Amino acid sequence: MTKKTNQQWGGRFSESMDGFILKFNESVSFDQRMAFEDIEGSVAHATMLGEQGILSKEDVDNIHQGLQQIKDDIQNGTFQWSTELEDVHMNIEARLTDLVGIAGKRLHTGRSRNDQVATDIRLYTRKAIDSLRGELKLLMNGIVGLAEVEYDTIMPGFTHLQSAQPVTFGHHLLAWFEMLKRDDERLLDCRQRMNRSPLGAAALAGTTYSINRQRSAELLDFTEPCANSLDAVSDRDFAIELSSAAAILSMHLSRVAEELIMWNSVQFQFVDLPDRFCTGSSIMPQKKNPDIAELIRGKTGRVYGNLVAMLTLMKSQPLAYNKDNQEDKEPLFDTIDTVTACVHAFAAMIPHIKANRKAMRQAAKDGFATATDLADYLVKKGVAFRDAHEIVGKTVALAIDKQCSLDELSLADLQAQHSAIEDDVFDVLTVEGSVSARNHFGGTAPNQVKQAAMAAKQWLNG
Amino acid sequence: MTKKTNQQWGGRFSESMDGFILKFNESVSFDQRMAFEDIEGSVAHATMLGEQGILSKEDVDNIHQGLQQIKDDIQNGTFQWSTELEDVHMNIEARLTDLVGIAGKRLHTGRSRNDQVATDIRLYTRKAIDSLRGELKLLMNGIVGLAEVEYDTIMPGFTHLQSAQPVTFGHHLLAWFEMLKRDDERLLDCRQRMNRSPLGAAALAGTTYSINRQRSAELLDFTEPCANSLDAVSDRDFAIELSSAAAILSMHLSRVAEELIMWNSVQFQFVDLPDRFCTGSSIMPQKKNPDIAELIRGKTGRVYGNLVAMLTLMKSQPLAYNKDNQEDKEPLFDTIDTVTACVHAFAAMIPHIKANRKAMRQAAKDGFATATDLADYLVKKGVAFRDAHEIVGKTVALAIDKQCSLDELSLADLQAQHSAIEDDVFDVLTVEGSVSARNHFGGTAPNQVKQAAMAAKQWLNG
Amino acid sequence: MTKKTNQQWGGRFSESMDGFILKFNESVSFDQRMAFEDIEGSVAHATMLGEQGILSKEDVDNIHQGLQQIKDDIQNGTFQWSTELEDVHMNIEARLTDLVGIAGKRLHTGRSRNDQVATDIRLYTRKAIDSLRGELKLLMNGIVGLAEVEYDTIMPGFTHLQSAQPVTFGHHLLAWFEMLKRDDERLLDCRQRMNRSPLGAAALAGTTYSINRQRSAELLDFTEPCANSLDAVSDRDFAIELSSAAAILSMHLSRVAEELIMWNSVQFQFVDLPDRFCTGSSIMPQKKNPDIAELIRGKTGRVYGNLVAMLTLMKSQPLAYNKDNQEDKEPLFDTIDTVTACVHAFAAMIPHIKANRKAMRQAAKDGFATATDLADYLVKKGVAFRDAHEIVGKTVALAIDKQCSLDELSLADLQAQHSAIEDDVFDVLTVEGSVSARNHFGGTAPNQVKQAAMAAKQWLNG
Amino acid sequence: MTKKTNQQWGGRFSESMDGFILKFNESVSFDQRMAFEDIEGSVAHATMLGEQGILSKEDVDNIHQGLQQIKDDIQNGTFQWSTELEDVHMNIEARLTDLVGIAGKRLHTGRSRNDQVATDIRLYTRKAIDSLRGELKLLMNGIVGLAEVEYDTIMPGFTHLQSAQPVTFGHHLLAWFEMLKRDDERLLDCRQRMNRSPLGAAALAGTTYSINRQRSAELLDFTEPCANSLDAVSDRDFAIELSSAAAILSMHLSRVAEELIMWNSVQFQFVDLPDRFCTGSSIMPQKKNPDIAELIRGKTGRVYGNLVAMLTLMKSQPLAYNKDNQEDKEPLFDTIDTVTACVHAFAAMIPHIKANRKAMRQAAKDGFATATDLADYLVKKGVAFRDAHEIVGKTVALAIDKQCSLDELSLADLQAQHSAIEDDVFDVLTVEGSVSARNHFGGTAPNQVKQAAMAAKQWLNG
Repeated sequence: MTKKTNQQWGGRFSESMDGFILKFNESVSFDQRMAFEDIEGSVAHATMLGEQGILSKEDVDNIHQGLQQIKDDIQNGTFQWSTELEDVHMNIEARLTDLVGIAGKRLHTGRSRNDQVATDIRLYTRKAIDSLRGELKLLMNGIVGLAEVEYDTIMPGFTHLQSAQPVTFGHHLLAWFEMLKRDDERLLDCRQRMNRSPLGAAALAGTTYSINRQRSAELLDFTEPCANSLDAVSDRDFAIELSSAAAILSMHLSRVAEELIMWNSVQFQFVDLPDRFCTGSSIMPQKKNPDIAELIRGKTGRVYGNLVAMLTLMKSQPLAYNKDNQEDKEPLFDTIDTVTACVHAFAAMIPHIKANRKAMRQAAKDGFATATDLADYLVKKGVAFRDAHEIVGKTVALAIDKQCSLDELSLADLQAQHSAIEDDVFDVLTVEGSVSARNHFGGTAPNQVKQAAMAAKQWLNG
Repeated sequence: MTKKTNQQWGGRFSESMDGFILKFNESVSFDQRMAFEDIEGSVAHATMLGEQGILSKEDVDNIHQGLQQIKDDIQNGTFQWSTELEDVHMNIEARLTDLVGIAGKRLHTGRSRNDQVATDIRLYTRKAIDSLRGELKLLMNGIVGLAEVEYDTIMPGFTHLQSAQPVTFGHHLLAWFEMLKRDDERLLDCRQRMNRSPLGAAALAGTTYSINRQRSAELLDFTEPCANSLDAVSDRDFAIELSSAAAILSMHLSRVAEELIMWNSVQFQFVDLPDRFCTGSSIMPQKKNPDIAELIRGKTGRVYGNLVAMLTLMKSQPLAYNKDNQEDKEPLFDTIDTVTACVHAFAAMIPHIKANRKAMRQAAKDGFATATDLADYLVKKGVAFRDAHEIVGKTVALAIDKQCSLDELSLADLQAQHSAIEDDVFDVLTVEGSVSARNHFGGTAPNQVKQAAMAAKQWLNG
Repeated sequence: MTKKTNQQWGGRFSESMDGFILKFNESVSFDQRMAFEDIEGSVAHATMLGEQGILSKEDVDNIHQGLQQIKDDIQNGTFQWSTELEDVHMNIEARLTDLVGIAGKRLHTGRSRNDQVATDIRLYTRKAIDSLRGELKLLMNGIVGLAEVEYDTIMPGFTHLQSAQPVTFGHHLLAWFEMLKRDDERLLDCRQRMNRSPLGAAALAGTTYSINRQRSAELLDFTEPCANSLDAVSDRDFAIELSSAAAILSMHLSRVAEELIMWNSVQFQFVDLPDRFCTGSSIMPQKKNPDIAELIRGKTGRVYGNLVAMLTLMKSQPLAYNKDNQEDKEPLFDTIDTVTACVHAFAAMIPHIKANRKAMRQAAKDGFATATDLADYLVKKGVAFRDAHEIVGKTVALAIDKQCSLDELSLADLQAQHSAIEDDVFDVLTVEGSVSARNHFGGTAPNQVKQAAMAAKQWLNG
Repeated sequence: MTKKTNQQWGGRFSESMDGFILKFNESVSFDQRMAFEDIEGSVAHATMLGEQGILSKEDVDNIHQGLQQIKDDIQNGTFQWSTELEDVHMNIEARLTDLVGIAGKRLHTGRSRNDQVATDIRLYTRKAIDSLRGELKLLMNGIVGLAEVEYDTIMPGFTHLQSAQPVTFGHHLLAWFEMLKRDDERLLDCRQRMNRSPLGAAALAGTTYSINRQRSAELLDFTEPCANSLDAVSDRDFAIELSSAAAILSMHLSRVAEELIMWNSVQFQFVDLPDRFCTGSSIMPQKKNPDIAELIRGKTGRVYGNLVAMLTLMKSQPLAYNKDNQEDKEPLFDTIDTVTACVHAFAAMIPHIKANRKAMRQAAKDGFATATDLADYLVKKGVAFRDAHEIVGKTVALAIDKQCSLDELSLADLQAQHSAIEDDVFDVLTVEGSVSARNHFGGTAPNQVKQAAMAAKQWLNG
């Protein structure tokens, strides 16, 4: 058994590793999820070796056939993984040699585990980005759909968690859309930048065989080969860049989650979340806990943590490959799994949020949210902005004193604040008047929100 | 099946959760590792309830018997875990009720999942600290043992990775010991601070039953009950504090690893690492890679990342329990596993490091490492320190010019630098003279190192 | 000028550093805040050198006098700091030599910048911890004072930001106290662990002079000298440990801040914050923004970031001193300044929070927060806990349906849920009944809160 | 004075803030560095207001003139900054009103501090990116220049810090180039994504004035206005994305620094760093410390920390603006300053690195670095790769035994390992033969390195 373990690189060694070290050192328990990418890379490598005359057609055919069988076995769950063979690459290669003999031993010609693993992880990450972007589009679609329905639903816009100015719920939802759109852009940038082939970098210096790196790149849908072999095997930028894009995405999701949790509280009652995304309490049967939103908020931590893990990992590493890099996979995989699941969960839930329009509107009325409108009214009557501001401050103090909203003050009370105020002031003091007046690109006026939703849909379909 | 899932808190719900959400929400896949602590806590809780007359003796006996059987089943691997029962607590309680009927349903009297999980995680963490401290002692013991052997082996002491002054290898090893000793102190502090019982805090406010919190604390070897129920269920300080102590420990291990990796290089050749802790290369058979040290260095990343994950998780959480907190376990467990394994690996490896004394001594000679001794010599001859320093700088420049070491300069050359130099200067220019002269507490003189190793051993045995 | 710059270590160099590099390299712009600690350390070092006969009494007197004058000049703002002299140590030493001549050049005998800076930073950090702990005590005192006043003020206790069970505001405040008490313990642990003297470690190996490290430790109120010279100059654990304790403290402050921000919202209206801790809006005059709480919440980020900075800095550094370590000071200083200011701000603000008792009580009533009490009532009537839970769930559903609270349901309605319910059920359905019943150590019953506040005060005064 | 402080938003307040809170709350001490951007934004805003007929031509002229004078005063250092006016915006606006009267009060029409600060920080960051990219190009240019000179200088390529295969120093340098090229791409992506105008978003909902957001965007060289007003004022993605790109850049610089520090050690002696980028030791005059490289390596910590600070800051913030966001500037500024200075320092230093070609070549020879070439040789002779690998392993063991390099083994010794070995084996065992044979795109063959350097230059000039 030990014999087998060491067959790939053990010629020089007089001792065998003991069990603990074997386990400490192995990566197959987590890198086996790149098995299909490993096979995909090997198929392309063998094809290129055959085209270049480095391997015979027979060898290439045997390799392709053997790899196909291994792929089938993995899909069927019949493949025997062995910790002693250390990693996914050795497991597959050893099995290939069992299956097709000498041809299997020839597959590694002009390649090293260093460029092999660098290729596998890029192929895996590329697929993961595509899948994540798919989920993201579903979520964005759900948000836009809800925004269309709620384009003129009035709610308070908050600053400092204080009611500031009325906005529409549709407008608020489209702010979420904008955040996620930037996330999608970042994911795409990352995908394009990483879409280069390390194959042919071999251990670190390239290889002495007359390989064709453009060809293996092309076979794997990479745009080009990496330009420097040392860099190709030591670069993990793409993993960090994806982790960073995922961290910003997670941050966005945590903001959405925070809002949903607050809006779902008895104090706000702005929204009703579907039961199937909530849970109860083991001791307080009345609770309807927004677990999914809380979990998503909490999962921000692990995504941030994984980013820090990878940045720490790469700090001060001399070129080229160091074993430290084996530690790149688990945080990367965890980040991919986490954000994909979080986006999926919100994509399922958000379209089914029920807005409590009455509570939202009342809250917009309660917080003196049209104070700015009064200031703008005064400015249009010729008062300088900063002076208008001072006057409105005193008017709000009066309303607090009288325990009423601004539009419930009498005209006399208002005119006592400033003589320019006339009867038309009440048009601007209603929440409907306030939102409708913000009628420019990006503003909260319902017809602007409608147009923004339409543009968002076009982008999604474009 | 859905019936069963929701039985604990589903009375109020009209919909059932779908499969994805169930999976997204569950924690049993990772919190089942606290099964024994969950049982331990339940046994103590039931005992206390019985003593207080809240449960009958018969109920308590049934609960104890049922829990013992569940424990046996888990140990035998025959326990059936169910994701639908969400977490370790529900899995065990549901099975208990299957086994002992109504008594099982009574176990949760005066308790909530909130104080239950807070208790379990403290019990688990306490054990983990004890186990980690045990491994740490083994590592420290190995280091001291090697330091005793190498107490007078001369090597260069580095600053800025430049040879600065000769030290002994034993002295360097004892610097590692000091780092780890502080780690042990921090772990102990953390253990003592967390050793308080949340049991009885119930959901967040305490319970209406006449429980005895001191008693359940005592049964579980806690020093006292937590003083405030809201705090008891929302506090995760102990997990962060342990993660932070582990991060500093990891940082220390990364420093040791970095040194071993460099010393193992062909350029340094200071040490020879045992083969069983090294691996070869798939393409470069001459390599003897210090994989274990590299992996330990790399694992620093995940330990840092887990600390960030937990700090992020708890940021701005309002009291008391939020579902976010379910995310505390995986980073905590990963940190515990990682640092315990790293310390174990070094404890196995470090005692078997072979010092290459010849290479170490030569390196100490090569770097003009006794320049400070020459400066001190001049000061003792009456030259002011800063002036002496200037003179020595020029002497080193001369030696560089002549491509020789300081003790290979002629007396005439030396006297040309300063007339106070006499024949006895050569005593201080040797590396042996240099280390022996640093003969005070904490200094590198071999007899000081011997004494320090003895003191270290006493501490380990004390 | 260049001459002067290089006088301390420039003997060997043929080029002078250009302006940019000088600026890039200098630390005096930020390490000058350790000037008094540098002087304090030098005074002790000189005293010890004199006692050991290494310096003459005259030299020691000159040094002490010169350092006193420099201290005065710094206090008066008349000291001339020079970037070209790189750091606080060189600035003071150069000035000392200007003032007292050759004695100044002798001060550095048996010392190096490495043990000097390690000593200074420990002295500085020790003072900072003492000062922070003082502010923390003030804050804790203010919290306990408010808790005494509000010991029986009823508010909802939240889990998942859902009203769960009634608690008292005093009880909630004492949860804050418990968090901060652990912070204080951690700060004290850190202080004790760092309170060892690096002096005498010199550059890294100790010194050839017959110094007395115990004596200089004693003069500086350290408990003992560091046990290993290599460790003494390369250890920055204390800075990281303080940063970590500060991060947990910051996390606690962010939780308090989050609650205050929410409670101050129009939706909650649980508290009224003093005007002087709030600001207005430039455009919305009605706003009363809880800026201080928001800033404190936001400042969590920099404190976490500084911890990461320092952990990153020390990762994989080989022993002993590396220039990297110059980067330890700014994050440490920023953390000290930040948390001290945040604690100070809360200590000023929190005693003046006005609880809106009416709103708090109403919220406790609104959320079916006594549902658990009903379940407990049923259990005491002989219903198994899990069955009782199911019944209560249905009762809550009924109350939601009828848009009333649990104690507003009729006895008939209640008995329809379970026949064991009798007229006394209304005692447990009131919020007052609920809190009073949680009458055990750590529970929320008002008399428990009173006792807890008393114990807290004793701890503060003890 | 207090009057003045509160004039902008104090109408409603009955108390004034005390000194500490004023200081705690202010941002002018650090946001004044955006003064020119603030003025630039105000000039554009006023121009647009004039064009739309919202302000009179006279007002606009007065505003422009006043702002020009303020700009001049700031440049001349005669502007009086006041902490009591809180931030850069209020300082400038108050001064403008002093200078031009009522027109100054009108500038804020249709604008809020929220969109104003969002605009300023984007303008500032955009400039900072341009400046950083300029420095980066200089550094890349210096690296390519050195690579051209050293295109065929042989050194060992390392994996696991073990000599693996010979490469050329030029090839290694171009690996650095590739890293930095990706950094440049990321900076450009970030610049493009952030180049949208928040102006017109006002406080959060847009404004009631008939503003032209496209026009103010155009005047400020933004590509378009932000599409959603809530998002525009609450988005700090660009700051995090830049911080993240800077963190990856810093990581690259730390890798370069680590290599330079090791190569500069006595053990490696691969390079000689210019004196002006090194410093000496206060006590060890022989030291030539690579301070700049160490500092750059250390500064990685603060850049990572700043990224964590900003991610933490934004976590779970509800929309739209919260005061927490004031904390975004210091970490962002610090990151910009730090990475720009680090890149500048390396750009100055790296072109002047002197390669020690002899030491590099000898090291390449010492480590059995042509072992892979021997394996490839055997494969070309018909031996399967994995078998060849085993044979080479034994050959290396033999050479270690005989204390010679592979090309110093006799033909007989070699043939004893495998009979296919012939006299031509010695061609592949030399380091020159090894590098020349890796002659494909991205490989280390000198002529490939030459071509890669040429391509790099074209990219830089393109």
